[in-house]
This record gives sequence, structure tokens and C-alpha cells, in this order.
Amino acid sequence: MHFMQALQQAWTRNHSLVCVGLDPEPTKFPAEFHDRPDAVFEFCRAIIDATADLACAFKPQIAHFAALRAEDTLERLIAHIHAKHPGIPVILDSKRGDIGSTAQHYVSEAFDRYGADAVTINPYMGRDSAQPFLDRADKGVILLCHTSNPGAADLQDLDVGGKPLYQHVAQIIARDWNTHGNCALVTGATWPEQLAEVRALIGDMPLLVPGVGAQGGDVEAVLRHGRSANGTGLMINSSRAILYASNGEDFAQAARTATQALRDTINRYR
Amino acid sequence: MHFMQALQQAWTRNHSLVCVGLDPEPTKFPAEFHDRPDAVFEFCRAIIDATADLACAFKPQIAHFAALRAEDTLERLIAHIHAKHPGIPVILDSKRGDIGSTAQHYVSEAFDRYGADAVTINPYMGRDSAQPFLDRADKGVILLCHTSNPGAADLQDLDVGGKPLYQHVAQIIARDWNTHGNCALVTGATWPEQLAEVRALIGDMPLLVPGVGAQGGDVEAVLRHGRSANGTGLMINSSRAILYASNGEDFAQAARTATQALRDTINRYR
Repeated sequence: MHFMQALQQAWTRNHSLVCVGLDPEPTKFPAEFHDRPDAVFEFCRAIIDATADLACAFKPQIAHFAALRAEDTLERLIAHIHAKHPGIPVILDSKRGDIGSTAQHYVSEAFDRYGADAVTINPYMGRDSAQPFLDRADKGVILLCHTSNPGAADLQDLDVGGKPLYQHVAQIIARDWNTHGNCALVTGATWPEQLAEVRALIGDMPLLVPGVGAQGGDVEAVLRHGRSANGTGLMINSSRAILYASNGEDFAQAARTATQALRDTINRYR
Repeated sequence: MHFMQALQQAWTRNHSLVCVGLDPEPTKFPAEFHDRPDAVFEFCRAIIDATADLACAFKPQIAHFAALRAEDTLERLIAHIHAKHPGIPVILDSKRGDIGSTAQHYVSEAFDRYGADAVTINPYMGRDSAQPFLDRADKGVILLCHTSNPGAADLQDLDVGGKPLYQHVAQIIARDWNTHGNCALVTGATWPEQLAEVRALIGDMPLLVPGVGAQGGDVEAVLRHGRSANGTGLMINSSRAILYASNGEDFAQAARTATQALRDTINRYR
């Protein structure tokens, strides 16, 4: 199924705009995992199984696996999601970007090797660096626009002919890069006004919104400024606040409760 | 040894500004490799051993390994360079970039897992996304400035208060981000005038210059516009033109000959 179609169905079926981020950090796992050889897989699988009916997407962040030499774990987790929770799209959060001939290898990494349904990429190198991703019309291409970190302002807010760079990025992607209708943008919850400006430029294009939870973004403001006309259009990501809601034996139940609470808070403002 | 020190010593000892890019593509390997289980390692090792005394750095491009599920091969190749050719720095070309807490995991990937001496990163997310890399004062942090691909112009050339974005990037990195003296910039050989403008802004900071060889950049122009005051300051990368100089049994000798020819051409204009 095409990513955009899967996302829309998951929004409806699970009545949820919550994207569950998978950022495994073994030192934060409950004690029961500390001696297990396959701890990363088992921890993440438990989170996935506890939250899949409450989420519109899962977003594994690849650095957390790469630093642990756990690429095979990431492969198995994505396969697990597809097998046990079909219809919930998987976003590989890797923020890649390189010249076209190399980008083709990153396309293989994300879609052929890992079987992701969508991938985050960095637009700084321009359209031809994104093209091999864009050409995979069935896959989602989620481009950085205005990120959630404080340093986002350093380049993204620079004034380009009367408007900030991130708005220029949003505009050229919506106007020129989205020929297959498979683009989405990353806009941080920590910048609600920028979210509104981006939404005004891109119609109903989905936004991946990190920065609620541990980073402090305000859910009501995200909805007010970021939702699309029909009350969807958002993948509101939470990673640490779900994964590490408890470090006791009840971690999976606590993750479920945290996901449900975020979903319900979001739905109050849709 | 610090990356910058190793690079300067390699420039001098090998009288070379050539960076040998390692972009393995098994379909381009000589026939003798086609059935070998460890073909990527053996091919790259042969290239490394044939060119190490002619290079100032090696630059493995990580997507080429990731698409092949060959992270362990990349680990072994970097270990091989350090063991057999000590003093030749290894640049992990991965163009990462993410919020600080995640960037820390990319730092672990590049420096702790792979043992790279330097890494390429993307500046779009701003200073705090680069900080965990910058804090490793012994490692090189090579930031994208003006890349070699045609699409570089899409964002990098946008006018920001009277100067193009890439010049702004060069300036803030030279002025604000380079407190440990471990920064370098990527500037493509395909844009020689931009190279001159960047050089004028950054003093003696090293430039990693892709785009000669297969991408068509002109070596003389790169030297004229990009060299530092003492005739160094450049890591001029060639990947495909060296790796695939021959697809016969003489591939390693042909790679050596191509590297030597590039080195000598460069040295003519230093």
C-alpha cells in the first residue's frame, strides 16, 4: 500500500495522530532487560505491541541502532511491525541526503533493506539529491523544514528575499518536488507559529511533528496551528515520553497509557 | 593523533592532496570478485593498499555499505587502514545531522564504532546539531557548504541579506563553530568560483572537494581557487575514477596509476 494511503487509513482506524518514536537507549531499559542478549529487540517489540492500536505510525531513529551495531535488530523490528500490525506505516528517521548516485544507495537502504514505508531526508543539497527518493511514488519522503531544536533558527530562519528559508523550503517542495504526492515535512512542535506559516503554504500535506513530550512542545498549539482542514495532516511524534514512561516491569503498560493520553489530548483539539 | 595534525602530516609525507573515496559497487568489480563472499572487503582493501602512499585521506561513503548490509565490512576496512597505513586519516562520509541527543548517537557511530578520524555532516539543523561532533576536538567535522551536484544551487545559492546561503554557512562555521579548530567544509569542484569565495572567507581551513573525475570538475581551477596560502588546504576526492579505472585483473594497479596521475596533476598547480 502507498504510504500516504496507509497513513490516512491509520489516522482513521486508530483515531490517532500519534507517531511512536523508537529511540532505544539500553541504559534506560527496565532492569529485567539488562542481561538479555536481544534486549533492544525485545524492549522495542513490547512497546510496539502495546501501542500499535493507538498509533498512526512508528518512527525508528536509525542512529540509536547504528551506535549499538544493531542494524539487524532494526530490520527485524520493522519486519515485526509489518507482520503483526499491518497497515501501520514505518518511518525510518535517518535524515539522509547526498548526490543522486549516492542517494540511490540510501534509497536501497531505507526501502529495500529495511522495508520502511517512508524516510526523513535533509533538503540542503537540493532537488536532485531528493529525486531518487521522490521517484519511489509508493513511499513517503519527509523533508526537514523547521526542526524542533533551538539551533533550527541558525539557518532555517535566515531571511531569503523577505521570507525565512524554511518557508522557501516548504514552498519549493509543495510546488516543485511533490509531483507524486508523496512528500511530507518535518516541523517541530517547539515552534508553533512557524507550524502555522508552513501549513498555510502546503495545503493538506502531512507534517511530521517532533518535539512534544521531552522537548516541551505544546499539543494544543500544534493542533491549532498545524492540523489540516479535515482535522488530520499531522504525525505528532513522541519517543522518550512513551518509551521510558516507566522503567519498571510495567513499562509496556505505562507506554500504552502515555500513548493513549497523548492521543486523547490531541483528539480534544482536532 | 588529532585529525588536523594527521591530515597535515599526510599532505607532506605523501606530497598529496588526493582523498581516495571508497564507494564500493559490486557490479562494477572485476570478474574475479563476483563469487567471493568477502568481495567488498577484498576489493576495497586492494584499492587501499595500492594507493595509501599516494593519498592524504581515505573517504568511505557509508550508503554504499549500508545498502549492502555491510557495516561489518566498513568496520574492518577502517581498522585495516589504521593498522596497515597509520597516519592516513579516514573520513566517514555520512552527512548526518539531527537534534543534539540523537547527534550523540551519530558521534558514537562515526568515532567509537567505526573509528573514523573525521565525519561529514549537514549543517541545516544548526549549531546545536553539530555541537556533539564539534566537542570531539581530536576529530574532524566536515560540514556541507556548497556541494558538487547541480541541485546544490536550489538552497545553497539563495540570497541571504546580499550573499548566498553557502557563504553564510562558511562564515558562521569559521567564526562561531570552529572553536576547537577541527572544522572543514565540503565545496564541490564543479563550482570553482564558489570555491574561491569560500576560501576567501575561511582562511586556511581545509576543504573537502568532491567532483573531479566522474563529475567533471577541473583540477586546475580547484587549485587556483581553493588552495590555502601554503599550497595545501585541500582534500580533493576521487572515487569512481580511481576505483573503477579498470575492471580487469589490473584494477589495483590501474587505481594506483589513476591516483598518481591525479596527484601529479594537482601538484603541478599547487
